[in-house]
Amino acid sequence: MIHRLTIPTKYAGLHDITNDVQAVVSQSGTVEGLCTILIQHTSASLTIQENADPSAQRDLEQWLNRLVPENDPLYTHTAEGADDMPAHIKAVLTATTLSIPIDAGHLVLGTWQGIYIWEHRSKPNPRELVIHTT
Amino acid sequence: MIHRLTIPTKYAGLHDITNDVQAVVSQSGTVEGLCTILIQHTSASLTIQENADPSAQRDLEQWLNRLVPENDPLYTHTAEGADDMPAHIKAVLTATTLSIPIDAGHLVLGTWQGIYIWEHRSKPNPRELVIHTT
Amino acid sequence: MIHRLTIPTKYAGLHDITNDVQAVVSQSGTVEGLCTILIQHTSASLTIQENADPSAQRDLEQWLNRLVPENDPLYTHTAEGADDMPAHIKAVLTATTLSIPIDAGHLVLGTWQGIYIWEHRSKPNPRELVIHTT
Repeated sequence: MIHRLTIPTKYAGLHDITNDVQAVVSQSGTVEGLCTILIQHTSASLTIQENADPSAQRDLEQWLNRLVPENDPLYTHTAEGADDMPAHIKAVLTATTLSIPIDAGHLVLGTWQGIYIWEHRSKPNPRELVIHTT
Repeated sequence: MIHRLTIPTKYAGLHDITNDVQAVVSQSGTVEGLCTILIQHTSASLTIQENADPSAQRDLEQWLNRLVPENDPLYTHTAEGADDMPAHIKAVLTATTLSIPIDAGHLVLGTWQGIYIWEHRSKPNPRELVIHTT
Repeated sequence: MIHRLTIPTKYAGLHDITNDVQAVVSQSGTVEGLCTILIQHTSASLTIQENADPSAQRDLEQWLNRLVPENDPLYTHTAEGADDMPAHIKAVLTATTLSIPIDAGHLVLGTWQGIYIWEHRSKPNPRELVIHTT
């Protein structure tokens, strides 16, 4: 079954969508199966990461910002803003699709795992997800 | 259903395979479902990236080449050529498998998304893909 | 079908789990289909990489250790040990889920491909995998 979800991001950084995706799984009625998520953008991406301590998420963001800074003289693709080319690179280094098994109606994530959209642009954006359950 | 596809790469860098994968999906007759692609190599990889402006792809390639240069004194695995160890590292940082939902017979990619083989070796290579549709 | 597997890692670095995953596929009786693996942790991850020359794996580990060192002054998430924040970053740069087609009862990996758990913590850990076959 195909489901579509629009997540309005609020800022650059990680946005927890675990509950949104679980709601889709619950609505689908899938008891045992597989949930695949695709984000239809190349300047935002997906990741599964620690959901407990906010300092871990902050360090992840800061570390990636330092690895892929704005205004790198290497960039020639600059017409869409200083945050655009770094956003594409960050998307390539993380994930555009994720597949998560479903058991007893629930995404089988580990205790400390959450599913995140990683917004790489500075401004808020409505981000489109396509979710397949089987 | 399992399909096999050989893509002859022409140079190091991104090769758009969106139409090739869509042709496999169309041929499979899948209306709603999931398409999973695996590249059977460790010195080339897969990515979903911007298909509009060639400058974005060029910057991606240049950025990754700078992050993972040839002839790094750290490398001990040098017997297969100066481009081999960087190729394995680049493959690890990008993707070896991708899963893309299918709706109304089409891969549900975003407007600006294309599917790419990223050839990390300098010479052309026939690259083997295995595609599963369900 | 959902399967659970515990892999005790022995040290930081790559652990080949190809045979363990193939055993699950064989036991499931799947002839043609898809195998999805999720690792339920955020300080260890998955990758598909070269299984032939140990020097390639050693260089991968050394390269990633240099890119993401311990005791980086950027880190504020330090309460869980010097190896914890690097572990989260390394997990984000590699993979938490992998989907591999199955044909004739076997994972269709390339000749030189193995499936690995990449332990990013210094100490051994029992790592939990959830495997979905269909």
